[in-house]
Amino acid sequence: MSIIVEKYRNIGKALKEDASSDKVTDLIRDLHHECIGLLSNYEKVPLISKVPEKKYFSFKVGDKLTRPINMDLFNEEITNIDPLMNILKKRGKASPKELTKICYSIAMSFCCSIDILKTRDQKTPGTFFEYFISHIFSKMLGVNPRKELEVLNLDMHTKLPTDFIFDLGTNLPKFHLPIKTSTRERVIQVWAHQRVLDGVYGTGRFIGILVSLAETKLDHKKLEVIEICLPEQWRLYQLFIAQMKRIYYLDIPKKYKDLNKLFPPIHVKPFGDFFYEFEKLYDIF
Amino acid sequence: MSIIVEKYRNIGKALKEDASSDKVTDLIRDLHHECIGLLSNYEKVPLISKVPEKKYFSFKVGDKLTRPINMDLFNEEITNIDPLMNILKKRGKASPKELTKICYSIAMSFCCSIDILKTRDQKTPGTFFEYFISHIFSKMLGVNPRKELEVLNLDMHTKLPTDFIFDLGTNLPKFHLPIKTSTRERVIQVWAHQRVLDGVYGTGRFIGILVSLAETKLDHKKLEVIEICLPEQWRLYQLFIAQMKRIYYLDIPKKYKDLNKLFPPIHVKPFGDFFYEFEKLYDIF
Repeated sequence: MSIIVEKYRNIGKALKEDASSDKVTDLIRDLHHECIGLLSNYEKVPLISKVPEKKYFSFKVGDKLTRPINMDLFNEEITNIDPLMNILKKRGKASPKELTKICYSIAMSFCCSIDILKTRDQKTPGTFFEYFISHIFSKMLGVNPRKELEVLNLDMHTKLPTDFIFDLGTNLPKFHLPIKTSTRERVIQVWAHQRVLDGVYGTGRFIGILVSLAETKLDHKKLEVIEICLPEQWRLYQLFIAQMKRIYYLDIPKKYKDLNKLFPPIHVKPFGDFFYEFEKLYDIF
Repeated sequence: MSIIVEKYRNIGKALKEDASSDKVTDLIRDLHHECIGLLSNYEKVPLISKVPEKKYFSFKVGDKLTRPINMDLFNEEITNIDPLMNILKKRGKASPKELTKICYSIAMSFCCSIDILKTRDQKTPGTFFEYFISHIFSKMLGVNPRKELEVLNLDMHTKLPTDFIFDLGTNLPKFHLPIKTSTRERVIQVWAHQRVLDGVYGTGRFIGILVSLAETKLDHKKLEVIEICLPEQWRLYQLFIAQMKRIYYLDIPKKYKDLNKLFPPIHVKPFGDFFYEFEKLYDIF
């Protein structure tokens, strides 16, 4: 087993013990160093970006390519991730823009390492991304997440499996946090789960926040990168299924960013903004 | 390209021209003969069924196994499928039980043929199952399906991609028909799409019907078959997201059948029942 996969598994174990521990922060930092070390052995191939104002490259491994990486967001300088580590440990400062880049670099360095080490493995990158984002939420909100809820409703008594739930306590907000490396047509699940929570517990009790990595798709033959976005469908889901309070991206697609400007808006933002506005999210306007 | 894949593609083309044509019925019959012919070359391996009152086997291809097949529902006698073909052509009779078995045999003979011919291909069996079930609905309802709808809602003007929609005309029912070889955790999409249709066009205008093949899962090492069912979650979806009018199975899991007996019930039935009750489905109680 590669050292990267081993370290990734250790993060899973440490999260189970205590999702908001400094130990997890340190393990993530350590894993990132391994991934950057691995990637430094491989050649970078520039890609043909069909996404306006974004440039992408992949690492080349034999005749295989990793997923596409946004040049402006990815940083290989290892010490550059320290501002995030400091903020998680409640010291130091960093701008939202810088934090978005750091989170993107950590997530992508691991995903691309798995693209190199394994074949067609989408599950490991997805699980790591869940570990990483749920750790940040645990640290910032000061509580550990749960992944199921009790349903007590008249004669029903059952357990509802959910995405991550961060419960700040009685009469305080509860966060419903789906975490996805990309969304595509599966995204309707996010709104549907929010709808079930609204129905079972009452509208407004769970604040829905989706965190997603990117919506890129690479054509491995043409070396072209596109973004797959369905903004019209998102509007229908937000109007007719349930209300998501925020959608955060590490590599935000412009078509989704534009949803902020329509009425009623969907608030789609770069993930770095979360660090400075999460306390504001408690207010339901 | 194998003759089975070629014939499968021809069904796709014929459906596009006219989903309710006798030509499609004949092509499905012809393909089924090819599949039964292919399967007759392979050894049957009995499996350890962990599903009460159901027995399963697989075809063995080298060290690979096809998906599990329900012994009581599967019939290799080629001419046994004729009663279905006759009913689609508006002649002859068959019991609901017989029709369920015929449909199961046709669906499984193709799915297992693809398990033999390809590796890890879930898409082709899924698409064939859509072809097959949507052809039956086209024949029985006398209309061809659509896969998108116009949304005109104040200043919104967009196209909503959907599952199969059978529109019987002005002031008549419209059927919303998702078709899946199995459902698992993705099933929430079915209720969520129904919710969007209810929201955009008004509750009760679209009659939601899910058709599913089976919920079996084979452990390839232990040779054990289980059924994966989430009845408690279905109840939450039916209570809090939207109402599905019918759920039809070719190999119906007992845990879902039992949902008929609870209040409020979810009507889960063997697919053969559809042929004799579809006119009753027009009444919204």
